[in-house]
Amino acid sequence: MGKFITLDGIEGVGKTSNLRFIKELLESSGHSCVVTREPGGTNLGESLRGLLLSHSDENMSPDAELLMMFASRAEHLSKVILPALNNNQTVLCDRFTEATYAYQGGGRQLDVDKISELEDWVQGELRPDLTIILDAPVEVGRARAGSRSAPDRIEKEKDDFFQRVRKSYIELADHYPHRICLIDASLRLEAVQKQILAKLIEHDIIDQVVC
Amino acid sequence: MGKFITLDGIEGVGKTSNLRFIKELLESSGHSCVVTREPGGTNLGESLRGLLLSHSDENMSPDAELLMMFASRAEHLSKVILPALNNNQTVLCDRFTEATYAYQGGGRQLDVDKISELEDWVQGELRPDLTIILDAPVEVGRARAGSRSAPDRIEKEKDDFFQRVRKSYIELADHYPHRICLIDASLRLEAVQKQILAKLIEHDIIDQVVC
Repeated sequence: MGKFITLDGIEGVGKTSNLRFIKELLESSGHSCVVTREPGGTNLGESLRGLLLSHSDENMSPDAELLMMFASRAEHLSKVILPALNNNQTVLCDRFTEATYAYQGGGRQLDVDKISELEDWVQGELRPDLTIILDAPVEVGRARAGSRSAPDRIEKEKDDFFQRVRKSYIELADHYPHRICLIDASLRLEAVQKQILAKLIEHDIIDQVVC
Repeated sequence: MGKFITLDGIEGVGKTSNLRFIKELLESSGHSCVVTREPGGTNLGESLRGLLLSHSDENMSPDAELLMMFASRAEHLSKVILPALNNNQTVLCDRFTEATYAYQGGGRQLDVDKISELEDWVQGELRPDLTIILDAPVEVGRARAGSRSAPDRIEKEKDDFFQRVRKSYIELADHYPHRICLIDASLRLEAVQKQILAKLIEHDIIDQVVC
């Protein structure tokens, strides 16, 4: 099986540039990479993403939102992630189930046990080999993200929502230190990338010799 | 709480005309009715129905299909069904979870325990007060439905799929005789409606005096 690496965090913490950085590191180290994202990553998943982020169902029920996230994930696992891992490729995914715990569990305050049930239902025992969470204060993230485009249905939530999302991410890293690591993303890009590199080496994803 | 009545069965067994008949009976008996359908019944649910039945994701994974059915159901319960029941209205729904057991469990041969987990997850203890399943041989249903319109993604399945769907419906009625009843829909419409009327009286949904 290939390695399954996910990158997570609130908006504006630098996911896009660090995703590119990780991909380059992995490829220099000989990994064949599949880079993908959630919600989305498949034709059906992108349609579900459209429904999830559009403003046409502003008040969709939290349970429906959660089930759609996992529907997108089930399709993604079946069509993209598992075939790639079984083909010994490395999958690098922009957001995964940790985002569901953070946004739907923390942000929307849904029962974490209900998320955990769906996680087991959809994923069985599959968990990412390594999840990198880019962490920065909500004000920093929102200031960086704010100018990019009109906020989608989730981005338009208020600051206290994102404070709860961030808190959940931090708690996840505390609870699963062997596979989830928190990176201080409030630092300059080079300093962030240095931490990411160290984590990839520490988790035996890439070889020290590459550096 | 109002009464929750669902009507189910394979294509071509007469759901549309019998739904109208049941609605009229209920209204003559003093019920205030909300008539709705699954998948669908809400703005989001109808969008999900569009994805489920369209041919753009011909081979969507069975797990994704199942989760989307329940996402539509969660929204439907939250926005339409529960508010109506709490308002003492009678909800009459064209297809519900029994269809999921029949189509995804029987037709697609998904693990029934996985469906049951999602049923509990989404519905808690809520079950319809009465489910009427219109039953007819697959050939009869398909012959009647065949000429109506181009088959959607599910209707285009082969006969053995629908044989399994029908078998599941029959088994459901066997397993839950107190709340699910099978009606022989291969008879003439008047004979079918006579059976439906008897079931509504038997289950104390309408009063004999109406007849």
